[in-house]
Amino acid sequence: MENQIIELSYALDTFYFLISGALVMWMAAGFAMLEAGLVRAKNTTEILTKNVALFAIACVMYMVCGYNIMYPAEAVNSIWPGVSFFLGADNALEDVLGSNGDTYYSGMSDFFFQVVFVATAMSIVSGAVAERMKLWAFLIFAVVMTGFIYPLQGYWKWGGGFLDELGFLDFAGSGVVHLCGATAAVTGVLLLGARKGKYGENGEVQPIPGCNMPLATLGTFILWLGWFGFNGGSELKISDVGEANAVAMVFVNTNAAAAGGVIAALLTAHFMFGKADLSMVLNGALAGLVAITAEPLTPTPGVATIIGAVGGVLVVFAIVFMDKLKIDDPVGAISVHGVVGIWGLLAVSISNPDAKFSAQLIGIAVIFGFVFVASIITWYVIKAVMGIRVSEEDEFHGVDYSECGLEAYPEFTDANKG
Amino acid sequence: MENQIIELSYALDTFYFLISGALVMWMAAGFAMLEAGLVRAKNTTEILTKNVALFAIACVMYMVCGYNIMYPAEAVNSIWPGVSFFLGADNALEDVLGSNGDTYYSGMSDFFFQVVFVATAMSIVSGAVAERMKLWAFLIFAVVMTGFIYPLQGYWKWGGGFLDELGFLDFAGSGVVHLCGATAAVTGVLLLGARKGKYGENGEVQPIPGCNMPLATLGTFILWLGWFGFNGGSELKISDVGEANAVAMVFVNTNAAAAGGVIAALLTAHFMFGKADLSMVLNGALAGLVAITAEPLTPTPGVATIIGAVGGVLVVFAIVFMDKLKIDDPVGAISVHGVVGIWGLLAVSISNPDAKFSAQLIGIAVIFGFVFVASIITWYVIKAVMGIRVSEEDEFHGVDYSECGLEAYPEFTDANKG
Amino acid sequence: MENQIIELSYALDTFYFLISGALVMWMAAGFAMLEAGLVRAKNTTEILTKNVALFAIACVMYMVCGYNIMYPAEAVNSIWPGVSFFLGADNALEDVLGSNGDTYYSGMSDFFFQVVFVATAMSIVSGAVAERMKLWAFLIFAVVMTGFIYPLQGYWKWGGGFLDELGFLDFAGSGVVHLCGATAAVTGVLLLGARKGKYGENGEVQPIPGCNMPLATLGTFILWLGWFGFNGGSELKISDVGEANAVAMVFVNTNAAAAGGVIAALLTAHFMFGKADLSMVLNGALAGLVAITAEPLTPTPGVATIIGAVGGVLVVFAIVFMDKLKIDDPVGAISVHGVVGIWGLLAVSISNPDAKFSAQLIGIAVIFGFVFVASIITWYVIKAVMGIRVSEEDEFHGVDYSECGLEAYPEFTDANKG
Repeated sequence: MENQIIELSYALDTFYFLISGALVMWMAAGFAMLEAGLVRAKNTTEILTKNVALFAIACVMYMVCGYNIMYPAEAVNSIWPGVSFFLGADNALEDVLGSNGDTYYSGMSDFFFQVVFVATAMSIVSGAVAERMKLWAFLIFAVVMTGFIYPLQGYWKWGGGFLDELGFLDFAGSGVVHLCGATAAVTGVLLLGARKGKYGENGEVQPIPGCNMPLATLGTFILWLGWFGFNGGSELKISDVGEANAVAMVFVNTNAAAAGGVIAALLTAHFMFGKADLSMVLNGALAGLVAITAEPLTPTPGVATIIGAVGGVLVVFAIVFMDKLKIDDPVGAISVHGVVGIWGLLAVSISNPDAKFSAQLIGIAVIFGFVFVASIITWYVIKAVMGIRVSEEDEFHGVDYSECGLEAYPEFTDANKG
Repeated sequence: MENQIIELSYALDTFYFLISGALVMWMAAGFAMLEAGLVRAKNTTEILTKNVALFAIACVMYMVCGYNIMYPAEAVNSIWPGVSFFLGADNALEDVLGSNGDTYYSGMSDFFFQVVFVATAMSIVSGAVAERMKLWAFLIFAVVMTGFIYPLQGYWKWGGGFLDELGFLDFAGSGVVHLCGATAAVTGVLLLGARKGKYGENGEVQPIPGCNMPLATLGTFILWLGWFGFNGGSELKISDVGEANAVAMVFVNTNAAAAGGVIAALLTAHFMFGKADLSMVLNGALAGLVAITAEPLTPTPGVATIIGAVGGVLVVFAIVFMDKLKIDDPVGAISVHGVVGIWGLLAVSISNPDAKFSAQLIGIAVIFGFVFVASIITWYVIKAVMGIRVSEEDEFHGVDYSECGLEAYPEFTDANKG
Repeated sequence: MENQIIELSYALDTFYFLISGALVMWMAAGFAMLEAGLVRAKNTTEILTKNVALFAIACVMYMVCGYNIMYPAEAVNSIWPGVSFFLGADNALEDVLGSNGDTYYSGMSDFFFQVVFVATAMSIVSGAVAERMKLWAFLIFAVVMTGFIYPLQGYWKWGGGFLDELGFLDFAGSGVVHLCGATAAVTGVLLLGARKGKYGENGEVQPIPGCNMPLATLGTFILWLGWFGFNGGSELKISDVGEANAVAMVFVNTNAAAAGGVIAALLTAHFMFGKADLSMVLNGALAGLVAITAEPLTPTPGVATIIGAVGGVLVVFAIVFMDKLKIDDPVGAISVHGVVGIWGLLAVSISNPDAKFSAQLIGIAVIFGFVFVASIITWYVIKAVMGIRVSEEDEFHGVDYSECGLEAYPEFTDANKG
């Protein structure tokens, strides 16, 4: 009888993992739609191709070695996990029953939940480098990022490495996922440079509007939905009263922060630009979600709303500020996931008494520093070997034609349009 | 041991609530896509902005006071629930174990499930007033609607108020959600008037086709999917054989009614217009879903199909009839959610022996009457203070430019198009 | 106490069925978006209408008789199940408790899970016959297919008929669903002929690009997500350690195969055409999913990736080859679901020691043979009675106008465009 309850709990927690993972997988569609909506028509097919392909690469690389790097069976030390390959067998029944509740969900369900996170981190990069990077350069970077860079820093926190030992707190990945992705993105953009025509000779910024706002909005809603799996699943257990309450709180706070981000970004844009700028509103929602990701459990829903709202204000200023720095990020990914990711990590201290502000700062510095260096080296090597930027002519005509040989909207746009 | 089963049941029911809530949250994307597909390109950004913003407003207002109004800890009486603010703590373990099964799911999961319903009610309004209402007037109405109007009438039925005491039956909200939203919509439209050019001087109706039918179809599919959470979650419990069977029956009947609505609307449109009018087919699906929402448990699947089919016929006639009344509803929301919502409430009597036809009539009259009066007062005040309709020039050029400063499809349409 | 565990297990398995079913239902949206993205703008409304209507027809026909044919209460023999109508009552509590675990989920939840599979099979057909078939001819075929053809061959395998007795293995339906749908599609295409202008007089193939690649990509992501329900739910049970592990393995392998399909198709297209052809990449994802569907449980994730990758290579060659045969399939459905479905059925032998290669070949031959004959007779009768192909003029102007009276994108395209 006792055993039947253990089995049933195991089944429920596994199911909860799988459904959470499915929701996070769905975020891949969200990034694809968001980015496809925010670029120009002539670069749409390519960004869609990138989003589908990076997801597939992430799944393969994480299976081949990433998962083992991030969650090693036996780590060498708290900085270096060692490398091993492919996945082992799932938990045997006798091990589950004899584990005293320690082994409470399928290892394969854990892999599934984790693998979709890697893809999320990588998806953040694709938007920032859109409209001028070579497709294959990007995909090779994706191999390195999802197989090595992401898993290594992930090990430091979630795999039990030195950041975890330090007391650095990051519930679902404002740092491990979002800041990591944004840092890889910023290095790509620094090496790549801005899109042709984005910044004038006198420093003026030329807006390049996205071609399909309903797609961008759909992408945002998909991400919002998927985030319930992202944060909700990161509680890692649901099968008793305390855990069920915790997961419910995470859902409520995740939603509240997104709502706060929307309202704050809407008002900020209204006062700054005099218009209800939808692209800012969408980034406000995402900023709220990123902000709460580091700690969606301990705040009250009211506080979560405020944490999200601060994210929503920050993101508007960050996007404007990036343009001042001539960091050309067509979708605002660096602001949303990087700047607001840092805010989220710092905001853990507001509601979680276990947080140490110094540990949060160290965590931010380590993730940013490591990913920055590792990424820039990777981009440099790729640049040296094959180049990372398309030709001026290809950029002018759109990368869809040069990279994919396929227009995204052949009947809606004039093919000769610049 | 006994306690472990109580805990596990609690976890399963909580998880079921959260997943149901996530599906209902997804309906926000459905309304956004449906409405964006059915308006003209020049008004698309604005309706997307409205849909994102209203969801955020609903979440904040319902947390601040709406939830407490609708489900008061201690109501003043069966008409007036009193007002209190913010959410309390979730259930303590000892209370769950000592409750004899009465406390069987997380209170936060209940809030999450309820809050997404408010947003649904508000989403119904945005489509009907599309293409000519001021954005901020709409958003201020959303504050009042989601914080006060919806919760108060919701209290009367679901919070245990006088409509519930009367025996009025409304399983998942054909009345409390759909008729409520549609009534708020109709008052907005009455005050706002029709879109320029919709009705000619001799009473002829000028069709204004939606600009993006795949989006409208996607929105309908999203709503169909989300409705499994909407109705399926409204059983409120799944953790024993009887409840699991009940939830399964609700899924089957919800799907069957939507299917019936599609086929009936397709045939009705074929015989009335000689064409398989997709917009009618989509509204037929939604009509089937609205119709079954008041009672998705007691009908057999065959009867559910017929209840949905009647909704599908009704909606086609209602849409044509609204135009005769010069009630200009760009997406047919008043017909789908209002007219068919009433049909759904009356149809409870077909399959549920506990239904009292008189109680259903009173429920309809009360919800319609209260929401009508409360809404029209709210709209009037907003109109007096800031106006609710954009200028003729802004309407001509599209509200996207005047309200949001952003085109939805800058590369696909000619900006000077009327 | 014992009974409480039985009830709770029943509830969990039922919930797992319902959520899996909801994910499969969502695939209907995936097919609709995929197909709408891959046809021309002038035929988009019609294909959307077809996708919504076929889903509704499938739901009604399967309820009326299909489910009883496929899963008969008492079959006449292992070839002929008999016919009976409508659904019976769900399991009584005493039967569940007394069943010794045999009755472990709601019968209604089983119906819900099965009914969405029928719709999937039918959705496969609509893409292949796009842009030139009469809407009503298609819908009448859908009645026959979903009420009789699909259920009968489904009975032979999943209902316990002679293919099952033979030892033919098909976990989630590479054969019963995908090959079945593809076979019905190929017969339709053979009778219908190619689209005007697709094949030149000298045998050259004229590419007809899809009008909306983001929609096609969205559709692919939706299908990928829905496939977790399709394959994951087909384990049919999750409520103990062994079953939970199995479902998790199915999720991981399904995802891995899709990833393998993407990468393989991307590389194949790159080497064959010199471009990263997005339409091939999307079909690669779907091919990976179809390939693993016959056996997603027994392979390791590495092997699953390879099975998917072979599917991804195959589908590119198959699409090119179909054009050599002048089988005009606008979305590649016959290649994805038919050619790769056969590969999936054969690949069962790679990882499942219970597989008999001969039984797999017989299963393929029987499904293909029966569905081919039954479908071609059905199409012939429809052709004789009402015709199946629109007039040349209607094809030139687009079936949206002639069949639905509604353009899909009235503001984005030039109405007079050919």
